[in-house]
Amino acid sequence: MLDALFWPKAVALVGASTKELSIGNVIIRNLQRYGYTGQIYPINPKAPEVCGLKAYPSLAEVPGEVDLAHIIVPSRFVPQAMKECGEKGVKAVIINTAGFSELGEEGARLQAEFLEHARAYGIRVFGPNCQGIINSDPKVKAYCNFTFTYPEPGSISVVALSGGVGALIMQALDDLGIGQRLYASNGNACDVSIPEIIQYYGEDEGTRAILLYTEGFDKPREFLEAAREVAARKPILAMKAGRTEEGAKAASSHTGSLAGVDIATELIFEKIGILPFRDEGEMVRAAMAFSSQPIPKGNRIGIITNTGGPAVIATDVLVDFDLEVPRLSEAAIARLRETQFPEAALENPIDVVATAGGPQFRAALDVLLDEEQIDCIFINFVTAPFTDTDEVARQIVEVSRQGRKPLVCNFMTNLKLERFQKTMAILKEGGVPFYANPGDAARALGALVRYGRIRQRDIGVPETFTDVDAARAREVIERAGREERSVLSAEEVYAIFEAYGIPVAPWAMADDAGQAVAAAERIGYPVVVKVDCAAIDHKSDMGGVAVNLADGEAVRAAVEEMQARLGSHGELRFLVQKFMPGGRELIVGASAERGLGHLVMFGLGGIYVEVLKDVVFKIAPVTRTEAEEMLSGIKTAALLDGVRGEAGIDREAVITLIQRVSQLLTDLPMIREMDLNPVMAFADGAVAVDGRIRI
Amino acid sequence: MLDALFWPKAVALVGASTKELSIGNVIIRNLQRYGYTGQIYPINPKAPEVCGLKAYPSLAEVPGEVDLAHIIVPSRFVPQAMKECGEKGVKAVIINTAGFSELGEEGARLQAEFLEHARAYGIRVFGPNCQGIINSDPKVKAYCNFTFTYPEPGSISVVALSGGVGALIMQALDDLGIGQRLYASNGNACDVSIPEIIQYYGEDEGTRAILLYTEGFDKPREFLEAAREVAARKPILAMKAGRTEEGAKAASSHTGSLAGVDIATELIFEKIGILPFRDEGEMVRAAMAFSSQPIPKGNRIGIITNTGGPAVIATDVLVDFDLEVPRLSEAAIARLRETQFPEAALENPIDVVATAGGPQFRAALDVLLDEEQIDCIFINFVTAPFTDTDEVARQIVEVSRQGRKPLVCNFMTNLKLERFQKTMAILKEGGVPFYANPGDAARALGALVRYGRIRQRDIGVPETFTDVDAARAREVIERAGREERSVLSAEEVYAIFEAYGIPVAPWAMADDAGQAVAAAERIGYPVVVKVDCAAIDHKSDMGGVAVNLADGEAVRAAVEEMQARLGSHGELRFLVQKFMPGGRELIVGASAERGLGHLVMFGLGGIYVEVLKDVVFKIAPVTRTEAEEMLSGIKTAALLDGVRGEAGIDREAVITLIQRVSQLLTDLPMIREMDLNPVMAFADGAVAVDGRIRI
Repeated sequence: MLDALFWPKAVALVGASTKELSIGNVIIRNLQRYGYTGQIYPINPKAPEVCGLKAYPSLAEVPGEVDLAHIIVPSRFVPQAMKECGEKGVKAVIINTAGFSELGEEGARLQAEFLEHARAYGIRVFGPNCQGIINSDPKVKAYCNFTFTYPEPGSISVVALSGGVGALIMQALDDLGIGQRLYASNGNACDVSIPEIIQYYGEDEGTRAILLYTEGFDKPREFLEAAREVAARKPILAMKAGRTEEGAKAASSHTGSLAGVDIATELIFEKIGILPFRDEGEMVRAAMAFSSQPIPKGNRIGIITNTGGPAVIATDVLVDFDLEVPRLSEAAIARLRETQFPEAALENPIDVVATAGGPQFRAALDVLLDEEQIDCIFINFVTAPFTDTDEVARQIVEVSRQGRKPLVCNFMTNLKLERFQKTMAILKEGGVPFYANPGDAARALGALVRYGRIRQRDIGVPETFTDVDAARAREVIERAGREERSVLSAEEVYAIFEAYGIPVAPWAMADDAGQAVAAAERIGYPVVVKVDCAAIDHKSDMGGVAVNLADGEAVRAAVEEMQARLGSHGELRFLVQKFMPGGRELIVGASAERGLGHLVMFGLGGIYVEVLKDVVFKIAPVTRTEAEEMLSGIKTAALLDGVRGEAGIDREAVITLIQRVSQLLTDLPMIREMDLNPVMAFADGAVAVDGRIRI
Repeated sequence: MLDALFWPKAVALVGASTKELSIGNVIIRNLQRYGYTGQIYPINPKAPEVCGLKAYPSLAEVPGEVDLAHIIVPSRFVPQAMKECGEKGVKAVIINTAGFSELGEEGARLQAEFLEHARAYGIRVFGPNCQGIINSDPKVKAYCNFTFTYPEPGSISVVALSGGVGALIMQALDDLGIGQRLYASNGNACDVSIPEIIQYYGEDEGTRAILLYTEGFDKPREFLEAAREVAARKPILAMKAGRTEEGAKAASSHTGSLAGVDIATELIFEKIGILPFRDEGEMVRAAMAFSSQPIPKGNRIGIITNTGGPAVIATDVLVDFDLEVPRLSEAAIARLRETQFPEAALENPIDVVATAGGPQFRAALDVLLDEEQIDCIFINFVTAPFTDTDEVARQIVEVSRQGRKPLVCNFMTNLKLERFQKTMAILKEGGVPFYANPGDAARALGALVRYGRIRQRDIGVPETFTDVDAARAREVIERAGREERSVLSAEEVYAIFEAYGIPVAPWAMADDAGQAVAAAERIGYPVVVKVDCAAIDHKSDMGGVAVNLADGEAVRAAVEEMQARLGSHGELRFLVQKFMPGGRELIVGASAERGLGHLVMFGLGGIYVEVLKDVVFKIAPVTRTEAEEMLSGIKTAALLDGVRGEAGIDREAVITLIQRVSQLLTDLPMIREMDLNPVMAFADGAVAVDGRIRI
């Protein structure tokens, strides 16, 4: 429970200062300025008074109860301060002081020390090296933070790893006039974590949508599980910076190592239905739409404009977001014809022309509200000097308040002119999301639509195949583990695949040419012979693979040649396998990601993966829907259906194969890397013809 | 010469109005408000006075000379008004009235009529259906426009086809505090054109950079030629909307048909060195950097930050722009160590930490100025409450004024606080380009770097191959033209290719099986036989191609089979050609674009063009550098160099082939479409093995 943190009845400042620009002074003044409803206790061994408040030499001397304390003293004094907090019965502590795990070993030691005290007393720790929290609720008005933006109460809650970006988001929301509810920036996050804060926001009735900024996750699975539940109830808009290698490096230099889980982060967002952003400005502007508009039921947009070019720009951006601009019905066009000026364009975009006033805008809005094939509305409203712009704004507000369909407004004006300030105030008070240019407005509406699509998406639950022999597979892996082998032999790999019903080209192991020929006779020609030897990793490059062997003589020759050439690498065994040409080469792979389970990869093999890097990833467990999405998610998806008269592949077989791979990975978390490369897919079936497992 | 338009000594308003919100009133008040230095003559048949100025019943009665007139009367009166302007000796006219070519035939007729009068009197016409112009020069202060933003004088000039977007750009520049020089939005552009305006801006000494918004070009070549010259002297930043099909449709609905030249527009921008944008907000913010900063010499950036997260976001965006964030030299790090706080991170990004003041910022800036491997500087400056932010701003201004390296500043603050307003004013007056968030700032610096790269790029001049037989090729095409054939025969196509030295697989024509066999014997086996018949377009689909024929018997059988099956389509001839398997399949194509010459296309054949649409375009004439860029511009460029042990192709042969194709197209503009599909490229040479020309 984080109530002591977000709803403190009394806040003590251990390290309160009389120096105006110091953090120990700024926080007190912020609490005062914001109108904090509880008690403030400055702790300072020398000053009798700080910011006009009686100061106490130590926490012990504070007369009343204290549920939340800021610790602002230098890092080496923090463990002692924590102890004193414990003795006073403090329930939560915000450590603003820096100089802990982010500074290396000595700092990490100090951090461990104060944490030990905190745990002993049952204190929850926020930070260290952090800003703090804000709660705008009039009942508490807690500004336990040293930033300088004073948000109005509202329904958007913010959680940001980085204080700098947190402040930026808070400021940008405030600049747009968007009210805020809870704010938290927890720096090193040694105890109270982002997943925990998100869960808290999820339970907070006043929070309608959550904005998250992060640079990665220490424990991605913990986040996945906490956020999944919250995301099912309210929108989470999130940005993960450090997308690029250089960006990740910049991130790790100031918060410690969180980088390297980039693909994973995006997949987590996707899997739980979090709306991802790459620009915090765009995220904030989208929040404005989320704070007042319903979620669109579909992607069909109606556009109303009183000027040409900006509608063109908006249309381009909306189409980038996969929105459709459908033709209006004849009935709708007829209604428009009755209500619009003769010069108006009754297409979609509806150009009500520059001289349009409130009645024309309203009539066009009503037509779009009634039009079945329209899910959301974009309004391009430039304040023409010869129009009663207030009346236009009032009509937009009325329609927005009906809440029948989401709308956003591109409101182009000069706010230096008092007349248009008034128009803006009408939109603002009316809760209409409005923006200063068509691109920004279009991206905000695009975000709403994208979120609607995410919410409608149902990936289902993972299928469980009951015909698997999990025990056999586990036994193979455990034996390799006992023998301290990290790379499994071909025999072991195929045994595991077979245990999970993953189709494999018929195969057998052979120790010498005679056994190989016998195996080939059983399997049927043509066959492939592959050397199997722990010391030979890239067997193909080393001439350890002979394909399309048509008879016993060829098999014998191949084995003997390999024995002669590669025998020096150690004991050689041979995999004899049915040669299966003519299929489409696919690749299915998996890798374990720290704390997250496995990423499963799918793509076309050969140059498609090597040159085009055309692959898609999902987090295991992969559901049927997700496996289908993988097949259609590659750029070269058309090749799976066959081009130039070729037959398409057996999609169903590949979808099942991916799900079986997913189940295998979920059952056997000790697998670190696995490749089925290639899987040959045919019009009827798909089989793995080579595989690799590392544990 | 557009001096009468941009520097009018006296402006008459034909259609001046006493109604406050009408255009004929707003323009007069705008001229007054902006401080127009010339005479204003309202023309109104009834009112004795408009906006406090004496009005005249007709232009003829105006006592002084008039060089510029607005025409605001209804469209049907415009031709008559134009005549009166002519009789009065008016040199330029702005027609604000709408209802001309954008409204169909009747409007187009009226437009033609007033244009005829204008030409008779030598009047230049701006518009119709347009806003007008603004000239902020204190010598004239001409606000011949009905918009409502009053720009401060500056060095950025704007030209926008769409008045709505023009106003948006002007407003956005003004909001950022960027001064403006000339502004023009010319609507239907029946006479004074965008190319002409750009040329005028190019000659205007007060213009440092030009912002262009367009939705397409009626005469792209005219634009290309005018803008090329200007772009060589000053930066042109441009945005072309209507990128998407839906956007183009929205554009054409309000300005007439300009769509469909989208690829061409981007290529024009690229060819002349115009910096393209997809977001007008981004373009405007970039203009702020262009208005005060030098152009970077390279893409290596140094980052200074006093907060973590925003630097991460900025780094991500900068890397998206292909900027590098190099390690600093040991010497630089040593200097930083001496001047920065102990907690500072002396990497690049340099984290001067939240407590850094003017001295720390300045020392870091000086290190980056001196560091040879740094071309430009990004500053992340959050106004910490405990810092003398004014001093930080002053240091940034001083460094910016030195002009040694371009810099931009992400200035994160709360402008509701007076203290920080002052800090902002220091940056603003000091000409530092600053932005409210890291993404915006990074994109502005990215634009500067991208422009630097464009300016450094030298595409050279087209090579002229002198071994071509242009007369022979022309004769072939002219004969087809005389015979009213639009699709050339195979024989003609190959003859033209050979005339231009484009390598073609050895070939011969045959009328029957006997001739075909004889031809094959001459050429050498294996051969291909293709049917050649004007009525058979997709010969491959119709079974009109037989490949890999190894001997005379096979050739005879193939010809006779085709004769039997396809004979009903008309007279059949046969192309016998050397069969050349094993090369890399390429495609080179060309199409004539209205008013622009030819677009030349290059890509890998087969699925790469069909499924991946992986092709690049250039405008002919294509220089050697451009041909090289085409080869490296496709996503699958690595395949040209060979993968998985294959030999790479003969790049030089393909580069020469593209240039010869370009010369052919330039010499023979009557070619509408041409395909070399496929061109087979080998380790030594490349030959076209099929071709098509349409005239």
